[in-house]
Amino acid sequence: MENPSAAIIIIGNEILSGRTQDTNSRTIILALAEIGIIVKEIRVIPDVKQMIAQTIQEIQLKYAYIFTTGGIGPTHDDITSESVASALAVPYVCNLEIYDILRNLYNIVDHEMSHAQKKMAYVPEGSKLIYCSATKVPGFNIQNIYVLAGVPRIMKSMLESILPDLAKGKIIQSKVVDIMVAESKIADQFELLQQKYPEVEMGSYPFDQSQSNDLSNSYQSSTLSSGQYGTSLVLRSSNYTALEKAYRELTLMFKI
Amino acid sequence: MENPSAAIIIIGNEILSGRTQDTNSRTIILALAEIGIIVKEIRVIPDVKQMIAQTIQEIQLKYAYIFTTGGIGPTHDDITSESVASALAVPYVCNLEIYDILRNLYNIVDHEMSHAQKKMAYVPEGSKLIYCSATKVPGFNIQNIYVLAGVPRIMKSMLESILPDLAKGKIIQSKVVDIMVAESKIADQFELLQQKYPEVEMGSYPFDQSQSNDLSNSYQSSTLSSGQYGTSLVLRSSNYTALEKAYRELTLMFKI
Repeated sequence: MENPSAAIIIIGNEILSGRTQDTNSRTIILALAEIGIIVKEIRVIPDVKQMIAQTIQEIQLKYAYIFTTGGIGPTHDDITSESVASALAVPYVCNLEIYDILRNLYNIVDHEMSHAQKKMAYVPEGSKLIYCSATKVPGFNIQNIYVLAGVPRIMKSMLESILPDLAKGKIIQSKVVDIMVAESKIADQFELLQQKYPEVEMGSYPFDQSQSNDLSNSYQSSTLSSGQYGTSLVLRSSNYTALEKAYRELTLMFKI
Repeated sequence: MENPSAAIIIIGNEILSGRTQDTNSRTIILALAEIGIIVKEIRVIPDVKQMIAQTIQEIQLKYAYIFTTGGIGPTHDDITSESVASALAVPYVCNLEIYDILRNLYNIVDHEMSHAQKKMAYVPEGSKLIYCSATKVPGFNIQNIYVLAGVPRIMKSMLESILPDLAKGKIIQSKVVDIMVAESKIADQFELLQQKYPEVEMGSYPFDQSQSNDLSNSYQSSTLSSGQYGTSLVLRSSNYTALEKAYRELTLMFKI
């Protein structure tokens, strides 16, 4: 049985300008990994309606779930909701449930809410609300699209409230072997191991010697010269038997 | 005159699995911003040949420059070079210049280089080398595509060596006003300012009070209640006169 798939769309000029480092992607990836949903692609795009709508149309049907972050606040640059409506060709309407939440939150009567405050009640018709314990202003879900806030703390709060409703997959486990040998020295052997265990995804990641925090499990090669890299060999699979076998072979290969 | 545009393709299962936080995107964004090149889109995709080739084909002509990071090492999961060749329908060949560098680097004769070491000499036919002071193993450039390493220190070294050859644009400057008022309170006024200065890109970013490090320049609102957010108002433009005027109006608007 295959794992449910997901894509993340990070919406925001502040990421593309370099002002802000995106951390939401990784938060979502790690939360989904715990329930066996695999993120296959991330797109970071600007606050441009046509770009948001087109991106959603391009990838909506390729993945089980689409998560967006950013662009659902009250200001003029917050155009995610109307762009999602446009992408799905669904009317962009005032949701009375959200409207009541906002009115309650701002504790004011109808005619005193600002244009900007009212704007947050507008979502694609047929959306279900995503509860947000952090601010009480909800995100929303329509079809397979989950529209979340951009501020990390608020995004997390929305994410927590939707996780129980998502399909679950078998969790991908991983095993890591750090060796103090340059990648090129072990690449041929490592490829043979990959061929023997196609159900285990094997990746090789060089690291600086200074980056290596915990090498209690490492293999010191006599061929390692100063300035060279060590290598993290990462095995990942939802087939735990194959993973364990491949891992044992890998450790024997380097006599750890 | 419009600024040259760019897109970044981050290639790597280690980012999509959550094992590694991507920082290369922001490094590239900030370096390009200093010469007036604007990053319009980032895609993070897995080590899958078809996906890499398809992504390149989709976006190559939309932007002046495409930068890729990751997947150019010696191991079996390093498939960026052959995927770029495939995307461009160009032969994937042994580059003698790289071959010589590698032979020199590993200080061995032809027949002793491993399969994996030789693999690093294979690039799309017609590629120009990108010098790498960090490891001496080069990246490469073909058409408008710049193929860089994934390890941040090595990526930076390659990036530095190509910056002088890229087209320059007028630098986008930015001005920021932090105010201790919730976004929704200023959204209507802020939108009017945006309408008055269409050549200035205006964004509004809520922050936690705890996140605010330097608010010497801030506006304390009597309407601010505990738990509410402050807001960073960001103005960006390559039209410095318009930027300065919009900024002055913004500060007057909030009596800073």
